[in-house]
Amino acid sequence: MLAIRRLIASQSLLPGDKLPSIRKLAREKAVSPSTVVEAYDRLAAEGLIRPRAGSGFYVAAGAPPGRAGDTHAPLDRAVDPFWVSRQSLDAGRETLRPGCGWLPPAWMPLAAIRRALRATAKTADATLVEYGSTRGSPALRRLLVRPFAAEGIEAGPEDVLLTSSGTQAIDLICRHLLRPGDAVLVDDPCYFNFRALLQAHAVRIVGVPYTPSGPDISRFEEALALHRPRLYLTNAALHNPTGASLSPRAAHQLLAAAAAHDLTIVEDEIFADFEPERSVRLAALDGLNRVIRVGSFSKTLSASIRCGYIAARPDLAEALVDLQLATGFGGPSPLAAELVFRTLSDGSYYRHLSSLQGRLTRRRREAIAALATCDVHPWTLPRGGFYLWCRLPRATDASELAQRGLREGMVLAPGNVFSVSRTAADFMRFNVTQMPSEVLAFLRRALG
Amino acid sequence: MLAIRRLIASQSLLPGDKLPSIRKLAREKAVSPSTVVEAYDRLAAEGLIRPRAGSGFYVAAGAPPGRAGDTHAPLDRAVDPFWVSRQSLDAGRETLRPGCGWLPPAWMPLAAIRRALRATAKTADATLVEYGSTRGSPALRRLLVRPFAAEGIEAGPEDVLLTSSGTQAIDLICRHLLRPGDAVLVDDPCYFNFRALLQAHAVRIVGVPYTPSGPDISRFEEALALHRPRLYLTNAALHNPTGASLSPRAAHQLLAAAAAHDLTIVEDEIFADFEPERSVRLAALDGLNRVIRVGSFSKTLSASIRCGYIAARPDLAEALVDLQLATGFGGPSPLAAELVFRTLSDGSYYRHLSSLQGRLTRRRREAIAALATCDVHPWTLPRGGFYLWCRLPRATDASELAQRGLREGMVLAPGNVFSVSRTAADFMRFNVTQMPSEVLAFLRRALG
Repeated sequence: MLAIRRLIASQSLLPGDKLPSIRKLAREKAVSPSTVVEAYDRLAAEGLIRPRAGSGFYVAAGAPPGRAGDTHAPLDRAVDPFWVSRQSLDAGRETLRPGCGWLPPAWMPLAAIRRALRATAKTADATLVEYGSTRGSPALRRLLVRPFAAEGIEAGPEDVLLTSSGTQAIDLICRHLLRPGDAVLVDDPCYFNFRALLQAHAVRIVGVPYTPSGPDISRFEEALALHRPRLYLTNAALHNPTGASLSPRAAHQLLAAAAAHDLTIVEDEIFADFEPERSVRLAALDGLNRVIRVGSFSKTLSASIRCGYIAARPDLAEALVDLQLATGFGGPSPLAAELVFRTLSDGSYYRHLSSLQGRLTRRRREAIAALATCDVHPWTLPRGGFYLWCRLPRATDASELAQRGLREGMVLAPGNVFSVSRTAADFMRFNVTQMPSEVLAFLRRALG
Repeated sequence: MLAIRRLIASQSLLPGDKLPSIRKLAREKAVSPSTVVEAYDRLAAEGLIRPRAGSGFYVAAGAPPGRAGDTHAPLDRAVDPFWVSRQSLDAGRETLRPGCGWLPPAWMPLAAIRRALRATAKTADATLVEYGSTRGSPALRRLLVRPFAAEGIEAGPEDVLLTSSGTQAIDLICRHLLRPGDAVLVDDPCYFNFRALLQAHAVRIVGVPYTPSGPDISRFEEALALHRPRLYLTNAALHNPTGASLSPRAAHQLLAAAAAHDLTIVEDEIFADFEPERSVRLAALDGLNRVIRVGSFSKTLSASIRCGYIAARPDLAEALVDLQLATGFGGPSPLAAELVFRTLSDGSYYRHLSSLQGRLTRRRREAIAALATCDVHPWTLPRGGFYLWCRLPRATDASELAQRGLREGMVLAPGNVFSVSRTAADFMRFNVTQMPSEVLAFLRRALG
């Protein structure tokens, strides 16, 4: 299908030209005739080609020339906080993505999702077509708070608000709590999209150096005193990009400092389900008083089923419901919530997590060994997940390496896109599940 | 299932209590045993009840008491721009909703959606689990621009950005273009959520009186000169709440005035597909120069499949991609886009529209006749859609009537939630598809 599309876009096939017969194309491409039929039907549905009774398919008049497939992010775009996401999301299928922030499809619970889709095809009419309630699916919210109770967090389903992603959850909280010019603390390094998001709020972003057991507490306290930040935005467990988890002592000190300065903390659970052994949670120590919990299923279940959540104090939850209504109407898709609910409630999500954790532990070990042959070493050893935050040898400039990688068909994640202070020029974040031998061959060549 | 839930919530069933056997409950409720099995499985998945091998189901320890089902919006909430949406969205199933802004499930293309879900269960792995490209599904975007070409709007798929709803599309545009304190023009009356959304942006909302052929042009020009607004936000066709459509003359004058004052216009297509005969479009006259087109499938296909879109000038589209990435990561669900694509591309969406239009025309006629018996009359006769904007007899206060309606189990949409100037106190918006005889009986009683 892509091939036909390209031929039309490049004007090798012009309006009125006849397409190869189904039988011929199936033979040429070594696919089944039904695959070709489906592809032709799809192109016809898009108006690119037209069937003529008894005579096959022809290129339609007005088929748009000059543009094949997706719009790729331009090669020469500056390496800013958007760089990694745009290059990764808009990359062609042939691009390698050792810098991207998600697992390859084959690592995801595909069978469970297909099963959930088939089951949802039989669900109640209202779930398929109505907006749903303002906080999102009651069934999913009831399910989400069960493990909270086991952690000692007393939150009911009404304290949870579903959103369309973890990022949107954080954005909603920022819209409610922040005003332009406010100061916000983030870890240095931190997830690059936290910076992009906070820039969209026109706030002052203050970085606190991150250590293998959490933010540097004395620098954190200094920043509180100096900048009077309104919010601290951080990951719960398996910090992005370092893979580090907070120590109990750091968690306690951090909350004490936050209380002294009336700081609100957003703790993002996005990678937490990758932890084979659970680390400490700010939300559990604090009990959703000044901590807001956000999370999503994009990394562990599906990024295509957009569904995130916020658990917060009742007054905050109530205000966020209004804000989500005003800015997105309704909010979380009842259909998306139903799909998540089904994979969680039939146990397939938890079985998937358990096998995933083991597989990732092996894969991290292999990647560490392979990277060591290029003299690339992790800054800390993560207890789970798929990231390795590595220092490059001989102070190699990671941005230059990433630009070179892009020219050679791979998206890398250079250190400074994560660093507010831009002090991570010789760091690179690697995704251990997206490192075929070509990536290592490139590194050997480039760093050798 | 709801009955069991209520018994647990009200503590009529306590932790450890045995539930009725599947056979017994099925007989009592006159449902099939498999329905009860499914309901029990679901309650067990939520942790409310626990199976014991060979002995049936029991109420679980720690089942949360005191809260049954959804959180309803409080009865005593002020009648503000959020009032109608929160009451409608969080209403129980038994509540009547003549004031709500959507069709009942039975009016929606349920079979087509169920078919699309089954087909999507077989789709490519990446569509099920990956983020998708930054602008959203290329296949759906190619499909969306086909009718644009027929209107004379030269826009390619790369000029379209998918979003998770029409409201989110407008919100994204507002975030990009507006700063706190800017003036924004809306119609008076206008969709109440435009007001809620603009309030979230802390802008000055300026209403322009709406006539049956569009905004009052001389008042529109006055407002431009006086307030120097950055944006005008309006509906394309079948204006909410009045059901009026713009006349060609008003459209032309409006664009001329906009050009003289460098005004950007957001034209929201949300109800446009309900028009049996197409009215004029600002986007078509202007060619996406200063007009931005937004739309969604929430009213005509499904509000549960969250999918909206923006078509805009390339510079705007590019900036909005970054903003959507920063604030929602990715954005539109590839899965939602796939479901919309399938119902559009197999023709079922267009067949549904055509039968819907005929059915709505009949239903509007019936509702007009029925309301006339209560001395309630439409302000204008819409050419399509499901709204009637009606004046109440003897200057009845619509908000008081709505509060009384709520106490009697129905959500109404009183005029002033739509009016910036609050000059619609004796108007009410009715949804002709949500008007069973109980609604008319209530109106007769209350207005008689």
